[in-house]
Amino acid sequence: MFFHKQELQYKATPDKPDAVYARKLQEVLGGQYGEITVAMQYSFQAWNIHIPGKYKDLLFGIGAEEFGHVEMLAKMIAQLLEKSPLGITDEAVQSDPTVAAVVGGTDVQHAIVAGAGARPVDSNSNPWQGSYITASGNLLADFMANANAEMQGRTQVARLYHMTDDHGVRDMLSFLLARDTMHQNQWLAAVGELQEEGAESLPVPGNFPLNKENRAVSYQYLNFSDGPAAAEGSWASGPAPDGKGEFTYHEGPTTTAPMPGPTHVDARFYGTTELPNIVEKAAGAVQDKLKKE
Amino acid sequence: MFFHKQELQYKATPDKPDAVYARKLQEVLGGQYGEITVAMQYSFQAWNIHIPGKYKDLLFGIGAEEFGHVEMLAKMIAQLLEKSPLGITDEAVQSDPTVAAVVGGTDVQHAIVAGAGARPVDSNSNPWQGSYITASGNLLADFMANANAEMQGRTQVARLYHMTDDHGVRDMLSFLLARDTMHQNQWLAAVGELQEEGAESLPVPGNFPLNKENRAVSYQYLNFSDGPAAAEGSWASGPAPDGKGEFTYHEGPTTTAPMPGPTHVDARFYGTTELPNIVEKAAGAVQDKLKKE
Amino acid sequence: MFFHKQELQYKATPDKPDAVYARKLQEVLGGQYGEITVAMQYSFQAWNIHIPGKYKDLLFGIGAEEFGHVEMLAKMIAQLLEKSPLGITDEAVQSDPTVAAVVGGTDVQHAIVAGAGARPVDSNSNPWQGSYITASGNLLADFMANANAEMQGRTQVARLYHMTDDHGVRDMLSFLLARDTMHQNQWLAAVGELQEEGAESLPVPGNFPLNKENRAVSYQYLNFSDGPAAAEGSWASGPAPDGKGEFTYHEGPTTTAPMPGPTHVDARFYGTTELPNIVEKAAGAVQDKLKKE
Amino acid sequence: MFFHKQELQYKATPDKPDAVYARKLQEVLGGQYGEITVAMQYSFQAWNIHIPGKYKDLLFGIGAEEFGHVEMLAKMIAQLLEKSPLGITDEAVQSDPTVAAVVGGTDVQHAIVAGAGARPVDSNSNPWQGSYITASGNLLADFMANANAEMQGRTQVARLYHMTDDHGVRDMLSFLLARDTMHQNQWLAAVGELQEEGAESLPVPGNFPLNKENRAVSYQYLNFSDGPAAAEGSWASGPAPDGKGEFTYHEGPTTTAPMPGPTHVDARFYGTTELPNIVEKAAGAVQDKLKKE
Amino acid sequence: MFFHKQELQYKATPDKPDAVYARKLQEVLGGQYGEITVAMQYSFQAWNIHIPGKYKDLLFGIGAEEFGHVEMLAKMIAQLLEKSPLGITDEAVQSDPTVAAVVGGTDVQHAIVAGAGARPVDSNSNPWQGSYITASGNLLADFMANANAEMQGRTQVARLYHMTDDHGVRDMLSFLLARDTMHQNQWLAAVGELQEEGAESLPVPGNFPLNKENRAVSYQYLNFSDGPAAAEGSWASGPAPDGKGEFTYHEGPTTTAPMPGPTHVDARFYGTTELPNIVEKAAGAVQDKLKKE
Amino acid sequence: MFFHKQELQYKATPDKPDAVYARKLQEVLGGQYGEITVAMQYSFQAWNIHIPGKYKDLLFGIGAEEFGHVEMLAKMIAQLLEKSPLGITDEAVQSDPTVAAVVGGTDVQHAIVAGAGARPVDSNSNPWQGSYITASGNLLADFMANANAEMQGRTQVARLYHMTDDHGVRDMLSFLLARDTMHQNQWLAAVGELQEEGAESLPVPGNFPLNKENRAVSYQYLNFSDGPAAAEGSWASGPAPDGKGEFTYHEGPTTTAPMPGPTHVDARFYGTTELPNIVEKAAGAVQDKLKKE
Repeated sequence: MFFHKQELQYKATPDKPDAVYARKLQEVLGGQYGEITVAMQYSFQAWNIHIPGKYKDLLFGIGAEEFGHVEMLAKMIAQLLEKSPLGITDEAVQSDPTVAAVVGGTDVQHAIVAGAGARPVDSNSNPWQGSYITASGNLLADFMANANAEMQGRTQVARLYHMTDDHGVRDMLSFLLARDTMHQNQWLAAVGELQEEGAESLPVPGNFPLNKENRAVSYQYLNFSDGPAAAEGSWASGPAPDGKGEFTYHEGPTTTAPMPGPTHVDARFYGTTELPNIVEKAAGAVQDKLKKE
Repeated sequence: MFFHKQELQYKATPDKPDAVYARKLQEVLGGQYGEITVAMQYSFQAWNIHIPGKYKDLLFGIGAEEFGHVEMLAKMIAQLLEKSPLGITDEAVQSDPTVAAVVGGTDVQHAIVAGAGARPVDSNSNPWQGSYITASGNLLADFMANANAEMQGRTQVARLYHMTDDHGVRDMLSFLLARDTMHQNQWLAAVGELQEEGAESLPVPGNFPLNKENRAVSYQYLNFSDGPAAAEGSWASGPAPDGKGEFTYHEGPTTTAPMPGPTHVDARFYGTTELPNIVEKAAGAVQDKLKKE
Repeated sequence: MFFHKQELQYKATPDKPDAVYARKLQEVLGGQYGEITVAMQYSFQAWNIHIPGKYKDLLFGIGAEEFGHVEMLAKMIAQLLEKSPLGITDEAVQSDPTVAAVVGGTDVQHAIVAGAGARPVDSNSNPWQGSYITASGNLLADFMANANAEMQGRTQVARLYHMTDDHGVRDMLSFLLARDTMHQNQWLAAVGELQEEGAESLPVPGNFPLNKENRAVSYQYLNFSDGPAAAEGSWASGPAPDGKGEFTYHEGPTTTAPMPGPTHVDARFYGTTELPNIVEKAAGAVQDKLKKE
Repeated sequence: MFFHKQELQYKATPDKPDAVYARKLQEVLGGQYGEITVAMQYSFQAWNIHIPGKYKDLLFGIGAEEFGHVEMLAKMIAQLLEKSPLGITDEAVQSDPTVAAVVGGTDVQHAIVAGAGARPVDSNSNPWQGSYITASGNLLADFMANANAEMQGRTQVARLYHMTDDHGVRDMLSFLLARDTMHQNQWLAAVGELQEEGAESLPVPGNFPLNKENRAVSYQYLNFSDGPAAAEGSWASGPAPDGKGEFTYHEGPTTTAPMPGPTHVDARFYGTTELPNIVEKAAGAVQDKLKKE
Repeated sequence: MFFHKQELQYKATPDKPDAVYARKLQEVLGGQYGEITVAMQYSFQAWNIHIPGKYKDLLFGIGAEEFGHVEMLAKMIAQLLEKSPLGITDEAVQSDPTVAAVVGGTDVQHAIVAGAGARPVDSNSNPWQGSYITASGNLLADFMANANAEMQGRTQVARLYHMTDDHGVRDMLSFLLARDTMHQNQWLAAVGELQEEGAESLPVPGNFPLNKENRAVSYQYLNFSDGPAAAEGSWASGPAPDGKGEFTYHEGPTTTAPMPGPTHVDARFYGTTELPNIVEKAAGAVQDKLKKE
Repeated sequence: MFFHKQELQYKATPDKPDAVYARKLQEVLGGQYGEITVAMQYSFQAWNIHIPGKYKDLLFGIGAEEFGHVEMLAKMIAQLLEKSPLGITDEAVQSDPTVAAVVGGTDVQHAIVAGAGARPVDSNSNPWQGSYITASGNLLADFMANANAEMQGRTQVARLYHMTDDHGVRDMLSFLLARDTMHQNQWLAAVGELQEEGAESLPVPGNFPLNKENRAVSYQYLNFSDGPAAAEGSWASGPAPDGKGEFTYHEGPTTTAPMPGPTHVDARFYGTTELPNIVEKAAGAVQDKLKKE
């Protein structure tokens, strides 16, 4: 169960409205790596978990905080939209370049659809979607996905920090940046702990039987482009991070197979088939089959 | 530029057609973590890169291989569909349970739309979409996203391995599993190398000035749920992975702020406003404004 | 069958082109609550109806009018785009703020894709989609959905009215506003008639056996937030609108249940399971199962 | 802020797993009218609200409960998936019709992507999306949207009730049905209260100046189809629900306007224009313009 | 304006219900090349047209017919769903393989969402979307798109013809097949007429000045794969269909250019940049810039 | 397999950055008819082909070139974004109209998400999606789809040519225009060759038995609108392009059928049914059925 308290975790009030910035801030509310994504991602991972205890508690504990961040951003955006213009485009108004930029730069659905309110969309008004989240049940894979989400998210917040000079907004972003720092660290700590405890190991999934994998190519770097510097990295020679093999470097593939021939399917799919006699046969076959139907 | 060779990197031919399995295999062709995703993701990272040299070559080198994996899966699926049924649902046919399962379990668009061919969709026929990929320009964040993609991808392939007993399919999957092993290792190696070279550091982005972050909450684990085991992990005490702080554990928030009040917007948005006198005033205001228009 | 007449229901010609406004007007053509939505929604409700007579005729009668509104908006938008700029961004041109606003504020796909034509998209160019419509077969639910659609639609048109001072556009909008007034009234009248006739009743669906519902909580307002004013409304005490119960007010839940434990699934899904002995067992189980395959 | 408690509002445990039903239940978790929709819809309405007090508290109070319902459904689905089959399609297994039905009827992404876990998608695996919600800032319109959502939602739950005979599932559904009953009633009570207080009135938005609407057609039922019974309803004669007019009935339109002529746009859009001389002129115009560039 | 008549253009009644086939038939109602697509596509082309006369009348004349086909399919699907099962999955019922196939093969949203009604979705329940249509304003391009749509559509209907043995369904499909034959022919005739009249010519757009095109490569077939038979077709030598050049055949590219170097962007985007000194410089630059803010 | 070479097919470097134009250019990278679409479309057609030889080689040969065009556009866009502004919206900056236009006209996700990099999206930031491609297995239909794609694509490139005066961009576009000219010609040549060889014929699919089509209406132009000029074209009289019939012209339908009555479905779907006695019966039926469950 979730209980709501009509307080915010941190102050989320801009110095002054800014409808153009409101649109940009939507990215970290409703974008691919916005707060709705992480709130939902951690919650679904918690609901689907296969083990009791600390990992579950960790997921619930952070997930609920992230729903509060969704709220902080929504309230901030609503306030940034307080002076949201109707945007009448008569020339008199537009002779002011600042107004012109605002007219061009806002999310017009903020005005038309939401009447100056926040929305579950990204900065280009693509609706948030369930396919943004990751929850596979494999905690090593999923915690890596979580670390990834926090890294992308913190990078976006860092960029947004420089896109405004509003002290109220920056104050809130400095708080969110700190929380992203914390959560990056937490997921990486959890990734480490899973491996130390032997619960999971690399490569993910760690308990898939390696003898069922084609081990001959498990540590070969096959360079399908012509950039020679690719051989210089630690990914091209030396021990692999999973501790189970040694990298080797190869230009192009070490295996090949002939391209399978064309497929032959039921003539009633009306695909184009071999020419020209075969066509006649196919037509005959179709006729035969059709007579029976 | 890309050059195509009419050979496959590895044999991709099933022992026998299986239209139901063809549908399932679509997941790793056109799903969130399928081969189209990684091929596109690594390519866009390469095209957008801000530094020359080994990281760029690494991205191009693996990206091109992944386009070849798209091809292997497409050819495999096309062959699995060779006996794809038209699916006439008359009772005689359906009295055979095996046929019944096939009728129910195939992707009907394989038949109706593609005439027994592969498609750029996932196992539930959601079309592949550009929002699946990640390419931020920050290589530490992006290589982490790549490792994440390979982990999720390998987990899905491992599951698919157990969903068939076709030797041809399993042989191809054993190859793809090995390549996912390799690529997981490579991205993790690259993540390590970026940090060793000092090119990037945690938290990502590493060169955002920490004094602009609200450091007071950067290492606090705030547990917004009531699971006490959350305090037991290495994410709740001890040094953080970024080496810049010590974790502390807290039940709930350490900061709060009052909820901002309702927003006041232009009356011509026709939002519901304060009652009842204010309504009258608003109506008056609207009338006034409208007279001028 | 639909028959088309090359006339409009009402004049739809702007005084002058305005490519920025054309983009905004797309919302009520191809948005969530635009004319395509209501035309399709009423038509699908009519096609799927389970009773003959007046409700069916009502749905067809309004549905066909709405297709004509789609047309009016499309023609209006095409004319608003007549001077649609190519948008060359050289400095000379952009030194004019009005031009700058236009450059920034148009839907660039109007130019690049449609060559200055209307499109089945909303004001942010999200394509119209079938998931916008509602047609459940339960007429009380569906007519409420229709009333809702007309209310949201009229609100958007009212906002758009204030976003232009073009007399031709405003004249057309004054017509559409009146039709939205009519249709709001009609669906509400129909909602009332369904209940008077005893065809449907609250709660929807009215003929679901109430003894199969957990009646103990059917009229309890459970406040999961801490706003005390929630208890002041007519939704917290007194008779409920369905006439079948009395509201009561409660802070938080009146029932609880323990969280179900973690789920245990087939080991071949490679989810993370209990630690550490259980992992070994699971690995053993996987090995056993795999030997058999 | 949201606080999470590791308890459910009501028991959510099936008697036995049922992977096919798990898929169906996804509709009311992640579908157009599922619990994610109402949780998000009420929350965004609360965050965007323009008045303090009881309506805000009502929205927060129910919104937080709905997040708990998301959780109940997710936990239920995860348990229904506990025996989720890998779905190997060999003939031996499929000779059992029950297995055949399961093979055909499950959401294969439950297995391949989520490893037997719930997902933020509907019963056909379309991802939940932000465009499902409605939050316009006009409370009369939005509460009507909320009543609509609860009606559609309760109808779907009622159908799902009959699609299983699992007592555990039915017990949880009987609880959700009751809560949908409550929430339908609450939103309708709130719709009434808004009007009684004079905060809002019909047609929505009530304070748009009626003299700017084309009142001549505000109460005309224009029947664009040929079903004569459409004239028999209370929507075709008598007073309108908004109390501001009398319905009249008309076959077809009462107004018409000529179709506007073709639009003339910049020749560099390469649209097809008037023939044939005009083409030459257009070509000439293009040449002229191009010389200048 | 559109006027509706409560008759169908052709009989659309199945001999008996078939919920599995109903799902399949959705493809040609709400799929990429279904009737909604062509109805909308021709209508938008008509509304956006830049010339008066016969082409406009042709578009309106066929477009309105297609809306009637949407209706025929919707009515057919609703009737096919008349015995739509609730789908209770108890073992007794599923021991019948035919039932098992039905349980597995239906669109579950037909039951849960639409209560046994048609929906604006394809055969895998992907919602119809506005991005399916094409309307560029260039009639040669657009009529080709129309011919393409009719060809894909007729192919799908032909496949669907063989997926049922219901005489009522087949009778309706035989009608739709004939109309697709007609419309294919019409658009091809119109494509020819546009060129004969000199209104448009190949390549499309015909009046783009050829001297602004890099004519050196306008008729070179550059084979980027290793299939030698590609040189055997009429596309590799001889005159081109536009009558303005001669095809030549080349293995691979005839031009190349060096890959542009990495891009250098504002340091505040936190992309990874050159190593390691440059990093320090960048960090310094960031610090400098931040001081000023 | 695909092999990558770190060279471009043609120079793709702008004279100077232009973030607004970068956004526009996204249309032909990731839009409905952008380079990703044609690269994927030709590849899937090749992978799914049912005949060996020249058509397969043609598809692979062009498909691989198109992946190189994706790359050229991505590199061009990345360079156009090199001076991509952070977009701080303070008044000082915006008093410059040129800056104002840039602030309003860029794709803000280029900055926030990609850190000044290209993305797999269109010019309005709609993600590329798999449903853009066409691959039916019928080569006549598919090559027509390919010709269509090249025509729409060349039209868009032609428009984009006039939206910039950057010589570097125009130089690249002049190359792409020429390649679109070539590919239009090639697909039309292939369309002709298929017919000459007798592999396919009109109407598509050519080998569907015409006696199963309702030939009475196969050449009737039924004008469902009131534009009389529709009768003037070559599509209304004379021989049809498929050589199998003569066009005739008709105002409206030549066939009609009564609208099927309302459908009767299981009462447990809770659709609204006949009034009022039938309701009672239905309620009784529900009760009866429910007792048994």
